[in-house]
Amino acid sequence: MSATPSPAAPTRTVHGFAAFERDGPIAPFDFEQREPRPDDVAFDVLFCGICHTDLHSIGPWGQEYPLVPGHEMIGRVTAVGANVTEHAVGDTVAVSVIVDSCGECEHCRNEMEIYCDEGPTNTYDGIDRVDGSRTRGGYAESLVAHGRFVHPVPDGLDLAGAAPLLCAGVTVWSPLRHWKIGPGSEVGVVGIGGLGHLGVKFAHALGARVVAFTTSPDKRDTILALGADAVVVSTDEEQMAAQRGKLDFLLDTVSAVYPMTPLMETLKLDGTLCSVGIPDEFDVSPIALASKRRSIAGSGAGGTRDVREMLAFCAEHDITADVEVVGPDAINDALGRLARNDVRYRFVIDMNAA
Amino acid sequence: MSATPSPAAPTRTVHGFAAFERDGPIAPFDFEQREPRPDDVAFDVLFCGICHTDLHSIGPWGQEYPLVPGHEMIGRVTAVGANVTEHAVGDTVAVSVIVDSCGECEHCRNEMEIYCDEGPTNTYDGIDRVDGSRTRGGYAESLVAHGRFVHPVPDGLDLAGAAPLLCAGVTVWSPLRHWKIGPGSEVGVVGIGGLGHLGVKFAHALGARVVAFTTSPDKRDTILALGADAVVVSTDEEQMAAQRGKLDFLLDTVSAVYPMTPLMETLKLDGTLCSVGIPDEFDVSPIALASKRRSIAGSGAGGTRDVREMLAFCAEHDITADVEVVGPDAINDALGRLARNDVRYRFVIDMNAA
Repeated sequence: MSATPSPAAPTRTVHGFAAFERDGPIAPFDFEQREPRPDDVAFDVLFCGICHTDLHSIGPWGQEYPLVPGHEMIGRVTAVGANVTEHAVGDTVAVSVIVDSCGECEHCRNEMEIYCDEGPTNTYDGIDRVDGSRTRGGYAESLVAHGRFVHPVPDGLDLAGAAPLLCAGVTVWSPLRHWKIGPGSEVGVVGIGGLGHLGVKFAHALGARVVAFTTSPDKRDTILALGADAVVVSTDEEQMAAQRGKLDFLLDTVSAVYPMTPLMETLKLDGTLCSVGIPDEFDVSPIALASKRRSIAGSGAGGTRDVREMLAFCAEHDITADVEVVGPDAINDALGRLARNDVRYRFVIDMNAA
Repeated sequence: MSATPSPAAPTRTVHGFAAFERDGPIAPFDFEQREPRPDDVAFDVLFCGICHTDLHSIGPWGQEYPLVPGHEMIGRVTAVGANVTEHAVGDTVAVSVIVDSCGECEHCRNEMEIYCDEGPTNTYDGIDRVDGSRTRGGYAESLVAHGRFVHPVPDGLDLAGAAPLLCAGVTVWSPLRHWKIGPGSEVGVVGIGGLGHLGVKFAHALGARVVAFTTSPDKRDTILALGADAVVVSTDEEQMAAQRGKLDFLLDTVSAVYPMTPLMETLKLDGTLCSVGIPDEFDVSPIALASKRRSIAGSGAGGTRDVREMLAFCAEHDITADVEVVGPDAINDALGRLARNDVRYRFVIDMNAA
């Protein structure tokens, strides 16, 4: 690993979309993209999902501007480096939230690079491990990344609907698999948005009984259609009380701080609430944990093993995200609506329309 | 189960010590105690530990006054009911934090009655399941309880030092066993007081490597003497940074709210912090959980299975609490010092001195 940029390395100018300052709008941005190194794959971006992380990154989390967001990509391979044998020009591929890692720690060796001891390289606004440059994401016509982090997309998946699998999908897939959700599991999914609607689909397809918790009673029928066995309005005390001690696992996708205790109490002894929404804090009573030895856990987005396993599962079970496809000229509108939770359930940018 | 008191049941007048009002001082209190029912054991209290819970119960948690605290008891059997075969007059016995439960739910059948679906009966300030009367604890010359919750004390244990095992002890024993701490485990114990000093002794005797976290650098030598392999001053950023990602499990005994994130970061991937101090809230960054799929858990004090297993382990390994024995006339002084954490490591009332 070297932090020294290699100014002599060949690049080409590509067209993309960036925030030029913190909280600034997304606007066209041409930038230099490296030609593939020997282990790299280059691809044209076909579709890129718009993730809540993009909002955070354009805002408070951003490190360097112009910032090209996007880490839910489906693309078509245009070139491969000399060492790449898994991919060929014309293949359909996907990139998730990380594009490199140390490759040597136990988590990397275990294909759980998201937990890399040195920290993985984020797909965008990260630091390239070879040349020290700032990584740029999928709001662009093309991307170049190490082949290990470029995943083959199985045949048969709707490509626009597949894009959100790469962050929203794997973020809920990874904990469902880690906590061994399957037939016989009683699973609650909290917050039925971009992540939650995929959580319902996955948990159902894995064989669990699924209870969806929402604050929106009007979403009931659409949530049942996703595969939920029951829909509970989480602000309804009576409905919540009826769930006390019933569930093995809660997949909580809510990114806002909210009073968690009534939800914790739906868990059985030794039940776990896994929060993947990264709220600012947990508003929960420690007694609700102690009274049934319950846990709150967090989870990263998942490693390359998760991504590939999930894509195979989605192809087998014909699962993709429910999406609203927009052109690049509508990115700012889409980000605004996402900030108001006005989307069912995920925006995807059609980069072919660029 | 009946909530109707049985005024005709025979009682006798016994001498004890009670808080007569919320936050009031402890003062002598004579009250009626039932004669043993067919499943009951009656015993003279020899020693009763003073637990942090007593402070809470005299204060905000108290339900009914006069309130006789005490749920860490060692006693000598004076009478047994007709159905009791396990205990005989003269036996040394112990009572922990609960004295009854529904007996029928899966947790009761599994001898984990602390998690009883109907809620267990607290040893003091609870409601007796037979006659609906208020339970009274071990700050008294004698106690009567269902034999299932009266535990034989193995020979060889120092009886004053054994008393705190019944709450402080089992509260740390139960999670250490549940999370399978043993040889090869890297365990942190946080807060080296009544619970924590037993946590260090247990984790060490179970074969783990033990790192003790304290805010008191001057306790270092005494903590090493308890069996810790290392002592870390948790307010020292450099010492904390050196522990990042090292531990499998944290047993957190702190009852105050404090910034938990630096501690969470000492855990490896999938590590758990189990909080048994019941603080008012958890001040922790959700990102610290997500970044290594860590968990925060709570744990109850343990069931009868835990209590009996722990007492056998303590006899085998010659483990008791480090105690300061006081007479009943010093209870108020002791409670005041406990509130200031001025005790190494547990007060025990010698009821023989009553």
